[in-house]
Parts: sequence; structure tokens; C-alpha cells
Amino acid sequence: MAPRRLKVAVAGLGRMGARHALHFLNRTPRAELVAAFTPDEKELAWGTQNLEPYGTKLYTDYDEMLKHEGLEAVVIATVTTVHAEQAIKAIEADKHVLCEKPLSTSVEVSQSVVDAAKKKPNLKVMCGFSRRFDPSYRDAWNRCDTGSIGRPSIFRSQTCDKLDPSGFFVAYAEFSGGIFVDCNIHDIDLALWFFGPESIVKSVAAFGITAVEPDLRKFGDVDNGVGVVEFWGGKLAYFYSSRMMAAGQHDMTEVIGTEGKLTVNANPFANLVEMSETTGVRREIPPHYYGRFEQAFVVEANEFTDCCLDDKPLPFKLTGAAQAVKIGCALQESLRTGKKLFFDETGRRIEHAQL
Amino acid sequence: MAPRRLKVAVAGLGRMGARHALHFLNRTPRAELVAAFTPDEKELAWGTQNLEPYGTKLYTDYDEMLKHEGLEAVVIATVTTVHAEQAIKAIEADKHVLCEKPLSTSVEVSQSVVDAAKKKPNLKVMCGFSRRFDPSYRDAWNRCDTGSIGRPSIFRSQTCDKLDPSGFFVAYAEFSGGIFVDCNIHDIDLALWFFGPESIVKSVAAFGITAVEPDLRKFGDVDNGVGVVEFWGGKLAYFYSSRMMAAGQHDMTEVIGTEGKLTVNANPFANLVEMSETTGVRREIPPHYYGRFEQAFVVEANEFTDCCLDDKPLPFKLTGAAQAVKIGCALQESLRTGKKLFFDETGRRIEHAQL
Amino acid sequence: MAPRRLKVAVAGLGRMGARHALHFLNRTPRAELVAAFTPDEKELAWGTQNLEPYGTKLYTDYDEMLKHEGLEAVVIATVTTVHAEQAIKAIEADKHVLCEKPLSTSVEVSQSVVDAAKKKPNLKVMCGFSRRFDPSYRDAWNRCDTGSIGRPSIFRSQTCDKLDPSGFFVAYAEFSGGIFVDCNIHDIDLALWFFGPESIVKSVAAFGITAVEPDLRKFGDVDNGVGVVEFWGGKLAYFYSSRMMAAGQHDMTEVIGTEGKLTVNANPFANLVEMSETTGVRREIPPHYYGRFEQAFVVEANEFTDCCLDDKPLPFKLTGAAQAVKIGCALQESLRTGKKLFFDETGRRIEHAQL
Amino acid sequence: MAPRRLKVAVAGLGRMGARHALHFLNRTPRAELVAAFTPDEKELAWGTQNLEPYGTKLYTDYDEMLKHEGLEAVVIATVTTVHAEQAIKAIEADKHVLCEKPLSTSVEVSQSVVDAAKKKPNLKVMCGFSRRFDPSYRDAWNRCDTGSIGRPSIFRSQTCDKLDPSGFFVAYAEFSGGIFVDCNIHDIDLALWFFGPESIVKSVAAFGITAVEPDLRKFGDVDNGVGVVEFWGGKLAYFYSSRMMAAGQHDMTEVIGTEGKLTVNANPFANLVEMSETTGVRREIPPHYYGRFEQAFVVEANEFTDCCLDDKPLPFKLTGAAQAVKIGCALQESLRTGKKLFFDETGRRIEHAQL
Repeated sequence: MAPRRLKVAVAGLGRMGARHALHFLNRTPRAELVAAFTPDEKELAWGTQNLEPYGTKLYTDYDEMLKHEGLEAVVIATVTTVHAEQAIKAIEADKHVLCEKPLSTSVEVSQSVVDAAKKKPNLKVMCGFSRRFDPSYRDAWNRCDTGSIGRPSIFRSQTCDKLDPSGFFVAYAEFSGGIFVDCNIHDIDLALWFFGPESIVKSVAAFGITAVEPDLRKFGDVDNGVGVVEFWGGKLAYFYSSRMMAAGQHDMTEVIGTEGKLTVNANPFANLVEMSETTGVRREIPPHYYGRFEQAFVVEANEFTDCCLDDKPLPFKLTGAAQAVKIGCALQESLRTGKKLFFDETGRRIEHAQL
Repeated sequence: MAPRRLKVAVAGLGRMGARHALHFLNRTPRAELVAAFTPDEKELAWGTQNLEPYGTKLYTDYDEMLKHEGLEAVVIATVTTVHAEQAIKAIEADKHVLCEKPLSTSVEVSQSVVDAAKKKPNLKVMCGFSRRFDPSYRDAWNRCDTGSIGRPSIFRSQTCDKLDPSGFFVAYAEFSGGIFVDCNIHDIDLALWFFGPESIVKSVAAFGITAVEPDLRKFGDVDNGVGVVEFWGGKLAYFYSSRMMAAGQHDMTEVIGTEGKLTVNANPFANLVEMSETTGVRREIPPHYYGRFEQAFVVEANEFTDCCLDDKPLPFKLTGAAQAVKIGCALQESLRTGKKLFFDETGRRIEHAQL
Repeated sequence: MAPRRLKVAVAGLGRMGARHALHFLNRTPRAELVAAFTPDEKELAWGTQNLEPYGTKLYTDYDEMLKHEGLEAVVIATVTTVHAEQAIKAIEADKHVLCEKPLSTSVEVSQSVVDAAKKKPNLKVMCGFSRRFDPSYRDAWNRCDTGSIGRPSIFRSQTCDKLDPSGFFVAYAEFSGGIFVDCNIHDIDLALWFFGPESIVKSVAAFGITAVEPDLRKFGDVDNGVGVVEFWGGKLAYFYSSRMMAAGQHDMTEVIGTEGKLTVNANPFANLVEMSETTGVRREIPPHYYGRFEQAFVVEANEFTDCCLDDKPLPFKLTGAAQAVKIGCALQESLRTGKKLFFDETGRRIEHAQL
Repeated sequence: MAPRRLKVAVAGLGRMGARHALHFLNRTPRAELVAAFTPDEKELAWGTQNLEPYGTKLYTDYDEMLKHEGLEAVVIATVTTVHAEQAIKAIEADKHVLCEKPLSTSVEVSQSVVDAAKKKPNLKVMCGFSRRFDPSYRDAWNRCDTGSIGRPSIFRSQTCDKLDPSGFFVAYAEFSGGIFVDCNIHDIDLALWFFGPESIVKSVAAFGITAVEPDLRKFGDVDNGVGVVEFWGGKLAYFYSSRMMAAGQHDMTEVIGTEGKLTVNANPFANLVEMSETTGVRREIPPHYYGRFEQAFVVEANEFTDCCLDDKPLPFKLTGAAQAVKIGCALQESLRTGKKLFFDETGRRIEHAQL
């Protein structure tokens, strides 16, 4: 008798949803993609061609999909604005949940997902921080964890997208929550991973410019942002995000400890080819994050499946996802107001710097 | 109705055979691993645990396996000495064949596989030159093909293994065919790819030392070899292979043209982590070829499957595999005798240099 | 008749002073090191052995040295606390001046040097921002200047020293002005170079920790600092400085424009050797800034000499040096108070953020 | 009293001669450039402008220059064809000699310089193998010497010039001695350095093509050459030289030992700037060898001067220079005839391979 496979549905078949669907369909041996939901006609057409023939039932109603017979887990990859609502519905329907980041652009709404999950401790509810599954980040974390750099103290991390001259991200900015919530949420999560989930924010300050898309201003957003987060206990994280890289995607991280430094992806590349030309030596770099993190997403799908099937603890907790949104939102507030925000040692907002 | 999947069997469940089996089982959506053969007890035990539960039937008799109902394709990953015999049997049984490199350590035997395949033009018979499926090599080849480096003229390529202090490869050398046939066969195949399959060898010279394993001498083999192959038409390839790398596997290639140069994997790495320590900046490199070429093997499995199912031409011809063995064997002869070997413009062996 | 050589004196024969002395003695063909001053016995002994035999007269009184017959130019490399006083004296004595950075740790005192220099427009008075003479920075600047990255918008730069476990820099911190004035002054100067000397600061915020030297706190200083400077007109610079690098000195800069990015020294190295070992691939990096900038200091000596002899304009203005101190001091204030500082479009300090 | 300075003359003021002259004039504090010789009008004009004003007397007659009062040392940087004759004359006139590589393109003539030098053991006679003075090569050699890579066994080295489309090197080939004597002479010298000067050649084989300059064939030369040299005792060196690099000069070396590998200049660069552009990430590389080895030439001038003034032993022996020419000429013969050449354990030429 063949081993049991997890019955999974994917909600949303946009750019990332379609990828999740294919990962669960073809690259997650212990899972079975039994259903998919999308309200979008184009996405539906894609599903009809690429999923249906392989036994995936398509739904245009999310609630109907949740009732799919035998369904055990839902991957939520719809627009950010409905992440939380769909996650909570799935939890209430007793499904395991893998929800794309961020849980929400609102601190309270994010917390409501955490609260819903707490009521069903038997369910696996995870936020899709894909970098947590990347072998390079894991290697760095293990080195850090075994003390190879002493006490990690400074954390620098950036998420930098290739310039999309279509102006797509201006429209997108209306709902994305802003550059710190949308892009740097990954870096914030990494900081909490490397510094420890118990880290308490002491201050937050954000800075930004609109170098290529002045229209972002109307949504209080920028195309290049720098954020600094001080933690109580002598730890400092600083972030950079950008929407205007010429060469391609460059997400990188540096963890500096008292005895050494770890760098992840300091020198990005699309593949292992170098070209020597009359103009010098050149390499290409990935055009988008999927070129960098494809394998991490596949590992994520497989590990999430394993945790559900074998009732193993997830590799990281859902509470961190709400904490990351909280920090991201504080950075956005600092960006909008131009003010530095302060917190006391219990994490409560205060008026003035506490030295 | 779910689309049809190719029914595949793997022969040999050793290091590479087990990997092939898992690739076809889990990472090749259009294939189904219906059978596997191994005469070895340990390998059988591995199969019982890792393949049988998923529906793969295990055989200890190759001929029996060939009779597995509905079987369409065989992957041959047994020891080199039986590659050819098993490939021919599979061809005669009307199965598609993916045979690990080299076809054989003998020129004549290799040719016999090519001859057998010619009689069944409807079958897909391919030699497993995994680098042909590596995205970096493909990118380099496309650039070369579109003229970006002018006329490719000098080809340098190396296959360098991490030192295995167990002395394993001394015993292995007895049947491997020697370092040029076993290791550089990949580089030779690449040279024929980049210079074109119609390239005619003009001369062959090989050199070698036994720096760490003097016992290799008794099999006429070395642990470090340098080979030079001149082609008619002003093209030159030179190869290096080694069994004594300290840091790990380093397979790299350089294609130099009249207007530029392409390099593949000049700076090997295990992942994207760099460590800054009191002793400097360090990165690790993959311990073996699978760390470098895992994805290429998966692509190979998928493309071979597509070609079989869709009756598409294979990405490269089987004749090249015999040609590569021929060049590898000539290098081994040159190594053993210390002599340079010469060939005329028709590829016929001659006594003296023709300038 | 041999061409005329500039008669130069060096004040201070400590670490950097001794180097300046040797550069002017041996590596600046158009200059002649006629005199040197030091109040320190050890330094004097060094001068007796290394300078005097080549015709350099040694002084223990700075004012006496200024009266050295025919003296035309003075290089000031004494402790920071006397830079300004000595510079002003030299200017008043009609000598050209090359003064080590910073002019002073005080904004007002720095300005007094600028004022003194203004009264003697015939004199060449320059602050020793050595990176301005580094061929890589110059190449980057030229590329930037010719528009190759569009409009420079984000500037990231760091000055990171190898950890000196002797605790030397704690004592040093008492007079250094703090990490932003002592280390990042170079990065600040570079920002003013790449963004243009007319750039007006909009806000300043600094953050820091004492990861390895808690005693620095008593001087209001840190061993790791992050500073962010917003400029009016949509430009943003952020800086990092550290005293705890394990591997060695790492000073690097990234200039991000609307159409591209320039990076200087992203991957530091001591020389061109790479070591492949059982632990991976390793390179060493320079132990201190002189290992990185030696040639820049030599170019500085030669160009300063040329400007004096040929009455050519200096490559950059003295006013920028005072501006850099001003920004550095603002960062130190922000670090000490935990507050973000704001400035209006005329550069005047204001209370609240102006958006 | 100022310390004594070595009185030096430079013969030849062509590309490299002019550089030597300036190095001794401006960058060698313990030397004095008292004289220079050139038979060429253009070069003379250059000397009149750049050397004479600083006290260097110019000669158009080499023998006259040798009689310059007080002259102690001669740097020979004329065309290769007169190196030996001028070196011998200088030795006979009791001058120290720094002679550019190669001593000659003839084995016998090279030996005659060695013989002349032997008769004057008090003189310092050195061949200008500039790489011996390069800090990276020295660092690699020291690591090798202290056993960090075990027993050095495989040596790979290349000298690759940027393509000069003027066809200059075709005319030049008539007198250069061929690509192995002209270019790879450096790599051969390095092999003798790293393997030890007592190494005995066992076989020599060379291969080459004329990819961009077919006219080189008439001088028995090529524009891309691969040479392999086996040494008795289980050591193997292989070389590559090229005149058609698109991006610039790339001279690199790899020393592979039983326990590790050292690489020098695997990734060439012109400076520390990296450009991120829409086409990827790019760096430039030096256009010619001087861009790579400028500092090595300056160190060479200074160390040669020190040896002469302080009667210290030179860093390497002149005999090696003749040995390098011998190997280079053997490679050229192998290239011309297409034959592999064999030598017995005493270094005597033999007919057949000795295994």
C-alpha cells in the first residue's frame, strides 16, 4: 500500500500561487494537490490547463473549496488583503495553513490569525517566510547558533528588486502595506531568527526616497527605504529595500558577531557563467526573487507537508510573523512621520528615548 | 483522465543509481518508477525501504526486470563493465535507454551500443552526460552558439574530485578505464559539444602523476592527469583531472573564442555563505559532483522522459558518446606509453605528426 | 639645472606621520622632506634613524620647525586635538598645509581653519581625505559623473577596523571625537563627493552598540555605529563603522543610482592569493586601512606637491572638511541623545521633521 | 652625510625601458639614474624631456654609456636580440646587471651570459623575472615553502595578453623567440621557483593554433599555445599563453599540492569597482601586464639596488634564467615539429619516452 499523501489546496493562482500549486503538484512527493481556488478568470484558465488534467479540482468560491472532501491543508497565496480572513476560515475549518507573507498589513489583523491558530493547537499554521528554508540561510544560522561568530550583534539585510519600468508597483503600493511591510518583512523575520524570537524592539527609525516613482508618495510609500531597528540588549538591525536595481534581484544579509561575520549572497549571480568581453568580465544576476529562492519554496512545501503528516513541530512559530508585521508597520509609521519611535523594555511604545 | 506517465526502471541502486531512482520516483512528474534491479543485497535493502512502498517492484535479475509489464524505459546505472551489455539488451527488448557514462571503457564495445541503437531508430537511447543539462553549461553554449565569443578556439576543462583518503579509487581504477575515461569523459564530451560533434581529432597527448596513490600505477592509471587534444581546423582542447583536491569538487570549463571567453564555475562554492574569521574570508565548496550537478540530473530525468513520451529528438546524439570514449581511450594510451598519438584528417591513426 | 622640489615638513611621527614622512622622502619625486616635528621621544628616535640621515632636520618645537629656512609646506599628522591649532599657525606662517582628518572634533574649531585659509587664498590648504586619491574611488566617481548610473540616490559606506583586543581604542575614544567623527568621517566626505558638495542635510540619526568594549560608553562612544543622513532633494546616505571585524579592515562603498550601481571594494583581500584547503577556499584581508590605501596616500603626497609647485587648484575644497565634521558631530549628538536631528532647507537646525 | 646611492644606467627607452628609467629615477630612493642609452630617436626625445632635466645623461652609444663615470649598474631593456651582448659587455666592464627577460632566444647565447657572470662573482647579475617580486607570488611561495599545500605536484600557469588588433605581434614574432619563450618564460620561471631550481625536465610537448593571426605561422609561431612539461620526480607543469584575450591581461597561476592548492590572480581586475548595470555585474581588467605588475617592477628595482649596495645575495640565481630559456626553446621546437621531446634523468635529450 502506498504511503498516505497530504491533501492540499492552493488559494490564489497568481504569480506565486501558480508556483505553489506546481510545487505541491510535482515537487512534493508526500502531498497531493486536490483543489485550487481563484476568483480570477485568467488564473482559472491557467488552472484548467495546468492543474485540472492532473486531478486538481478548481473552485471560484473559497468557502466551497474548504469543503472539498478530505482536504487537509490550505496554501494561501491570494492578495495580501484577504490573507488573514482566508487563513482564519481555514483554521476554523480544521485545515493546516501555509499563508504567504505578510499575514496582513495590519498589526491587529495579523494578531487575529495568531489568536485563531492558538485555539487549534493541533493544526500546523505557518507564515511563508521562504528564506527560512533556503540552505544558505540555514547554514548561516547553524554556524551562528554554534557560536562561530561569537554573539551576533549587528544585522544588515536587504531586499532589492529589479526596476520594473511598467510602474506596476505604484498601483501595487496601495495595498502592499508599504516597502518595509512588503519587502523588508523578510529581512525583519531574518533578524528575529538570528537575534532570537524573544528580542524586544527598543527603537525604530525609517528613511526613504522616491527616486524613480514619485507617485508612491501618495500612498506614503517610497522606492528606496532604509530602516534601523534597535533591540534591547545591545543588538542593532538595519535594512535596505529598493525597487530600482538595474541588474536584477539582490537580496543579501550580513550577520556580524563579536568574533566573526557571516554573509549570505554578497555577490548575486544568475548562474555560473562569466563572460569575458572587450568591456570586461560580466555575469548576470537573477531578474526576480524566484530566481534566487526557487529551491527554498520547494523545501518549504515539502517540510510543511512533513510537519502536517507526521505531526512534527513547524520550524518556526506563527507569533514571529505577527511580530514582523508589527516592526514593519512601525517602520512605515516612522517613514511617514519622519519620527523615530521608541519602546520600553516590555515593548510598550513610549514618547522619548530611553538610554 | 490523468496524462500518461512513462514507465521507467532503474538498473543498479548504488550511489548514482539510487539517486536516479529517487529522481524518477519523486522529481519527474511525467514518469513512474515501476521497477528497479540490483544484484547487490545492501542496495536491495535500500530499495525495499525507499522504493517498494511507493510501488516500485524490485528485481535481482536484470532480464526479468526487462519483462516487467508495460515497462518503457530503462536507466542503466550499474558498474561500467556491464553498461553496454545491459543497454543492448534493453534496446533489443524495445526499451528507451538512459545509460550512465561511459558507455564502456572500450571503443569497440561502446560502438556496439551505438550500432544496436541504430537498428531501433524509434527508441531514445542517450548517454548520461549530465553537464549537458546543467543550466550554466547551456547558457554558455547558447552564448557561444550565437557568436558572442567569435569562433571558439581553445577549450579548457577539468574534473577534480575531493581527495578520498580511503584509497577507494585505487580498487575502482581497475575497472574505471582510467582517469581520462572515468573523469575527463565529461570534459571531452563538452569539448565535442562546444567545438561541434563533427570535430576530427588531429593528435592526442596525455601526462600524469601519482601524487597521492602510487598504487594506481599498476593499473596504468594516475591521480592527476593532463590531456591535450588537437582538432583539425585549428582547435585545441586541454583537460585536467585530479583525485586529490583538498577543498572539494571543482569541475570547471573555459571556452576561449576569437572575441571573448566564457567560464563556467571558475569559483566553486557549496552555498552562498561567506565566513569572515580571524584567518580571513572563507567559503566551503561541494564535497562531490552531486553537490554541483544535482539539478542537472533532475533536468536530465525530466527531459529524457519528455523525449520518450512525446517522441522528440534527444538533445544530443549517442554517436558522440562513442566518440568521447574513443578520445578518452586514446588519452589513456598516450598516458601509458608516454607517446603522442597522431590522426589524419579522416580520423585515421597515423605514425607521425602531420603539420 | 634640476627642477625645483617642494620643501616639506611633517608634524607628528606617529603611525601615520611616519608614513607621510617616508612618502615625502622617498615616493614624492618633486618634494623634499626638509624637516619633521615631534614632541615624542620614541618618535624622535625613529626620525633620527630613518629621516635625519637623508637630510631631514628634526624639531621638538613646532613653532621652531615652522621657521625652517625655505620651508614651503607642512603635513600635519599629530593628534587630532592639535590639528587645527597647528594648521592655523602654518597658514599664518604662509605655508601650504596638508592636514590629516578630521580638522578637529569640534565644528567651530574646524570652521576656524577654513576661515584662516580663506584669508590666504594663495596657499593650498587641504584635508587629507585619502580615499579621494584612491584610483578605485576616482574611477567610480568618474563613472558616476558621466551619468553611468543615472542620478545617484542612495549612498552606503562603511569603515570597519579589525578588532584590536588591546583595548587601545577605549583610551583613544576620549579624544577621537567618537566613531562617526573618527571613522565615518571618510564615508561622510565620500557622500559629499558623490552627492555634490552643495548637498544640504535634512536629518541625521545615529545608532550604536558596545558589543566588545562596554567602557566606550563613558565617552559616549560605541564600537559599532550605524548612521543615516537624509539630504534635501531626495538623497539618502547610510553609514556603518565598526571596531570589531575579525578578518581585517573592510572599508567599502556602494553608490546606487536610478540606472545602476557602483560598488567599491565589496570583497576585500590582502593580495591575489586564494588558498584551497580542507576547510574550503580562503583569502586573507588587510589588517588595517594602510593595507588598503597605501597607494592613495602616495598619490595624495604627489598631487598635493604638484598643486603647491604649479599653483593648481586642489582636487577638493577645504570647506567640505568642515562640513564633514559638522555631519559627524551631528551623528555623535544623535547617538548620545538617541534623538533624530532635523534641519531645514538652509541647513538650520529645527525641532521637528519637515516632510 | 646622505647615504650613498647606487649609480644606475638604463639601456633602451622603449615601453619597458622608459618604465625602468622612471622607477630608478623616482621610486628607488637608494638609486640614482645617472645615464640612459637608446639608439632610437623617438626614445631619445622622450629621455630629453623626462630624464635629462633630472640629471640623467643620455647616450646613443652603449659602449660610451658603459664608461659613464662612477656607473655601477646597468638595466638592460633593449630588444631581446641584443640583451646578451649588452649584458656581457656590462659584466666585463664590472657593472652589476639587471637584464630583462629572456636573456636570449637561444639556449647557447643565454648560457654565455651565465658563463660571463660566473667569472665575476662579485657582481650582481639578475634576469628581470618581475613576478618573483610580486607580493602575491611571494606570499604563495612562502605558503608553499612552509608546507601548507603538502608536496607541490601540479603547476598551471598562463600569460594571456589582450588582443592587439594592430597586428604588431606578427612583426614582433620574428625576433621574440616565439610565444613560449616570449610569454610563458615567466610561467616556466615560476614553475622552476615553486618546484625547485634543481628540477629536471623529463618531457616537453607543445601545441598551438593561430586563431587570429595566421601570418604567425611563417615564423613558426602561434597566437595561442599550450605547453606541458613533465619533471622527473612526479611533477607536472602546464602552461597556456594567448595573444587574443578580449577583456585584458590575465596572468594567473595555480599550484596544486597533495594537501591543498594555491591560486594567484584567478579573477583579474583593473581596480576595486564593480558596476551593476541592466546587463549584469561587470568589472574591468588590466589592459596589459604593467597594470598587473607595476608594483612588482618597483620592488624589483629597489631590491636589486639593495643587493648591489649591501652586497647581499640576489633573491634568485641567474642559472635559472638560462634553464627557463632552455625549456622555452624546447617547447618551441615541439610546437614546430609537432613532436614530444624526451629527456633522461640527467637532462640529456633522448629519443623515446622513458617511463
